[in-house]
Amino acid sequence: MKNLELVLRKNKYQATTELTIKDVHFGRGFTVIAGPCSVESQDQIRQTAAAVKAAGAQVLRGGVYKPRTSPYAFQGLGKEGLQYLQAAGDEFAMPIITEVVDTRDVEWIVECADILQVGARNMQNFSLLVEIGKTKKPVLLKRAMNATIAEWLNAAEYILKAGNPNVILCERGIRTHENYTRNTLDISAVAVAKQLTHLPVLVDPSHAGGRAELIEPLALSAIMAGADGLMIEVHPEPSQALSDAQQQLNLEQFAELMQKIEKTSDFYRSQLSQ
Amino acid sequence: MKNLELVLRKNKYQATTELTIKDVHFGRGFTVIAGPCSVESQDQIRQTAAAVKAAGAQVLRGGVYKPRTSPYAFQGLGKEGLQYLQAAGDEFAMPIITEVVDTRDVEWIVECADILQVGARNMQNFSLLVEIGKTKKPVLLKRAMNATIAEWLNAAEYILKAGNPNVILCERGIRTHENYTRNTLDISAVAVAKQLTHLPVLVDPSHAGGRAELIEPLALSAIMAGADGLMIEVHPEPSQALSDAQQQLNLEQFAELMQKIEKTSDFYRSQLSQ
Amino acid sequence: MKNLELVLRKNKYQATTELTIKDVHFGRGFTVIAGPCSVESQDQIRQTAAAVKAAGAQVLRGGVYKPRTSPYAFQGLGKEGLQYLQAAGDEFAMPIITEVVDTRDVEWIVECADILQVGARNMQNFSLLVEIGKTKKPVLLKRAMNATIAEWLNAAEYILKAGNPNVILCERGIRTHENYTRNTLDISAVAVAKQLTHLPVLVDPSHAGGRAELIEPLALSAIMAGADGLMIEVHPEPSQALSDAQQQLNLEQFAELMQKIEKTSDFYRSQLSQ
Amino acid sequence: MKNLELVLRKNKYQATTELTIKDVHFGRGFTVIAGPCSVESQDQIRQTAAAVKAAGAQVLRGGVYKPRTSPYAFQGLGKEGLQYLQAAGDEFAMPIITEVVDTRDVEWIVECADILQVGARNMQNFSLLVEIGKTKKPVLLKRAMNATIAEWLNAAEYILKAGNPNVILCERGIRTHENYTRNTLDISAVAVAKQLTHLPVLVDPSHAGGRAELIEPLALSAIMAGADGLMIEVHPEPSQALSDAQQQLNLEQFAELMQKIEKTSDFYRSQLSQ
Repeated sequence: MKNLELVLRKNKYQATTELTIKDVHFGRGFTVIAGPCSVESQDQIRQTAAAVKAAGAQVLRGGVYKPRTSPYAFQGLGKEGLQYLQAAGDEFAMPIITEVVDTRDVEWIVECADILQVGARNMQNFSLLVEIGKTKKPVLLKRAMNATIAEWLNAAEYILKAGNPNVILCERGIRTHENYTRNTLDISAVAVAKQLTHLPVLVDPSHAGGRAELIEPLALSAIMAGADGLMIEVHPEPSQALSDAQQQLNLEQFAELMQKIEKTSDFYRSQLSQ
Repeated sequence: MKNLELVLRKNKYQATTELTIKDVHFGRGFTVIAGPCSVESQDQIRQTAAAVKAAGAQVLRGGVYKPRTSPYAFQGLGKEGLQYLQAAGDEFAMPIITEVVDTRDVEWIVECADILQVGARNMQNFSLLVEIGKTKKPVLLKRAMNATIAEWLNAAEYILKAGNPNVILCERGIRTHENYTRNTLDISAVAVAKQLTHLPVLVDPSHAGGRAELIEPLALSAIMAGADGLMIEVHPEPSQALSDAQQQLNLEQFAELMQKIEKTSDFYRSQLSQ
Repeated sequence: MKNLELVLRKNKYQATTELTIKDVHFGRGFTVIAGPCSVESQDQIRQTAAAVKAAGAQVLRGGVYKPRTSPYAFQGLGKEGLQYLQAAGDEFAMPIITEVVDTRDVEWIVECADILQVGARNMQNFSLLVEIGKTKKPVLLKRAMNATIAEWLNAAEYILKAGNPNVILCERGIRTHENYTRNTLDISAVAVAKQLTHLPVLVDPSHAGGRAELIEPLALSAIMAGADGLMIEVHPEPSQALSDAQQQLNLEQFAELMQKIEKTSDFYRSQLSQ
Repeated sequence: MKNLELVLRKNKYQATTELTIKDVHFGRGFTVIAGPCSVESQDQIRQTAAAVKAAGAQVLRGGVYKPRTSPYAFQGLGKEGLQYLQAAGDEFAMPIITEVVDTRDVEWIVECADILQVGARNMQNFSLLVEIGKTKKPVLLKRAMNATIAEWLNAAEYILKAGNPNVILCERGIRTHENYTRNTLDISAVAVAKQLTHLPVLVDPSHAGGRAELIEPLALSAIMAGADGLMIEVHPEPSQALSDAQQQLNLEQFAELMQKIEKTSDFYRSQLSQ
């Protein structure tokens, strides 16, 4: 790994960089981001926020600009959606995260969101990385589905080099020949990223597997690979979702999963990690 | 292939859509775009333009905003580079093509370039596709290295749906397990795209193979797969190039290759295609 | 490419190794192997042999031991099938090729077949390679769908090192993320293999694309990439075939294709290659 | 998943099939197989056996027929190696497992080994699967690096259909574009296999990552994905190993890892699984 001065650990004892966003920490303890793939209505996001907060999630997610394969698919609610997301975050005292897909949107979304998300399809949208790098806003950088670990870390280096040290990495599955799952969670990449960089590393088990029934095993595996947190898609009625219907948990499923996540994270932190 | 109303052929007898840019045609005969990976100086692009024009290339390429894996790599000359490219295009009466990587640049690059290029890394930068779709400017859309053919055609559909019918597709290799070549040219995708869509389809053998010695066999293969043209990287001194040093032809090599390309294209069009 | 003493060209001027099997040459001119995926009956193979011979194919193929994903799929006619294949080869004066899948079968299949085929799934069945290497029988070695070019050449080196210099390489598509085609024909691998080794290199466009309508463009592309021949699946009634129904040409389609293949090969050999 | 009558669970409540080999169970509790990649000498295997037994491993592994990419690489000690392995297994009361690569070897290796291993490269060597299926000997079936989950389960179906129900599945990483790791551990495949089949599922973190420093996080992740056990490469002096030098743990590292494995497996079984 060359030319990664800012992203790599100076040595293996360097601590993970901590980010504190309102009262939520990344890189200390274990942090869960939850919420629907897309914000679909004020009710939907409010109901989800209430439930995921009660279940123990710390950050609320919700897409309002959706990068969809087809131009005829639901593209997100845009600014209106972001208002709903903000209102829900405020009401339940949760920082919010949403995806930015256009350099022209960075300036104003920075005002509304607590964390910016760079999606897998934009991981090498270098203009966007630099624009976000000019802000100090925390940013969650997803790995592209065809990116090597080295390319992912280089993308993070773009943001740090532009002046923003507040980067969280997120592994969300790579594209392989396997077609039973939507993508292939690269669990090794989580362990490798933790060994090489000082940035917090999250895992998105929803996109990785693309199937609700795989979220639990993938989430628990991620903890053991050393992840600092998870981003999980949750919807009040997954089968009715306007996007990603197959891979969202309902509110009860998420609450059950959170208990296992907390138990496992406690076990990992108390019994296994140094 | 669903939801691709604008991009798919209505039936197998529908002709390929022709684009005419200055005196150059895409979708009629065979069209070659040539030039350096990056515009590096006024001399370099002028010298290349003279040579590729003399050899028979019709369109001049040159990158001025370079999407590079590392933030420390050469990022292109920007506006200054585009002026050099324009001057060379004017002097040698060649339309010019350059890559756009930021929605904010579309408005003014449209004024300077004859064809916009969307690079592989931005194939699913949907904001950029829509912004380009709002212009009527011809656009060359490269396939992302992890995209399926269906995703590539959906990206084209974004541009057409936004109002711009002047799309040229370009296959430039996909990422596979093979590591002797930089990417793997998906020659089947060329044949498939020609069967399914009415848009012109080009091939970029330089990026596909990543090795100068593979450009000739890949270029000639592309003709037989039905491609409407080629985009080839040419540099006066490849070993000194600031980017893609391994995969650029020098001026003499390109001139020799052009003779074979013309011979093969003539053979294909006169002897094989209906 | 290391440790490939027998397989690599000593220098770029070394000629391609020629194999002569009965009156058929590999590595000189252009050689076409044709026949059904599986031998299904005496009539079927006889009828196919007559037609492909008349159309210009030189070698007759037919599988009798079929490596199938499912144990419940048609597994081939075995010895009975080989007798039918032999009879058809004798009647129409064509050398025959069939796949060997078990070390225990090498001894007796060597007596019946003119060329042994090692299928993609057995490319790294090293016991089989060594067993075949102990004979002098010509062998067609398919590239595994996950093999690098280096691994493919190493597999050939096993056979040569064991004492058998009569190896023909065959590219048949690799497994990638693309799912519109059955596999992805790695046309670069053909060009690379031709540059690196002195062994004849064939292409199997039937398996590579997995679709009858792609055989023509892939076959013609292969010629331009420098291939020494093709192996094409042909069946009197493809839709009724017991295996590979989607990718076999019928007798008329094959005859038409052969005309284009001959024309293109003549053009390539007279106009383009040194 | 079609045509997998014997391998699939009849319903989600069907218990995992238990295999008992001497005193060791697969499919009940958690089972660890350990030992060197290759048996290199009597001392080496004896020393390793003593250490892995003391650390808690239940089964001893050691390759004696090594499928190597190059014919010039160390090919294993053959029968002599198997005698050493047997002696070590007897002395330390551990069942032994070794790879079979040739149908002709099945008959006699069945007499010496407690478990047969089918390696990734032979997963679709159907003759070998059938030959092993005719015995009742327990067999560990590794997933090929290019196989889909469906193809892996079909390979198991071959063995069961031939009469041998004693199959253990083993995920060992698939081949992807990522090159920092040797392969990409498909942790989802473990969870999927556990959901779909009643066969025990193991994970090989040594081959999956190809790096000693990744074995711990991958091993612990595998437990959380539901794996029934692990196969880990251990060597007294990894840097001197004749094969797989980069990915073997030394005896002390393995002993430390076993403590974490036991703790994690206990946690998983007592706190998380139903």
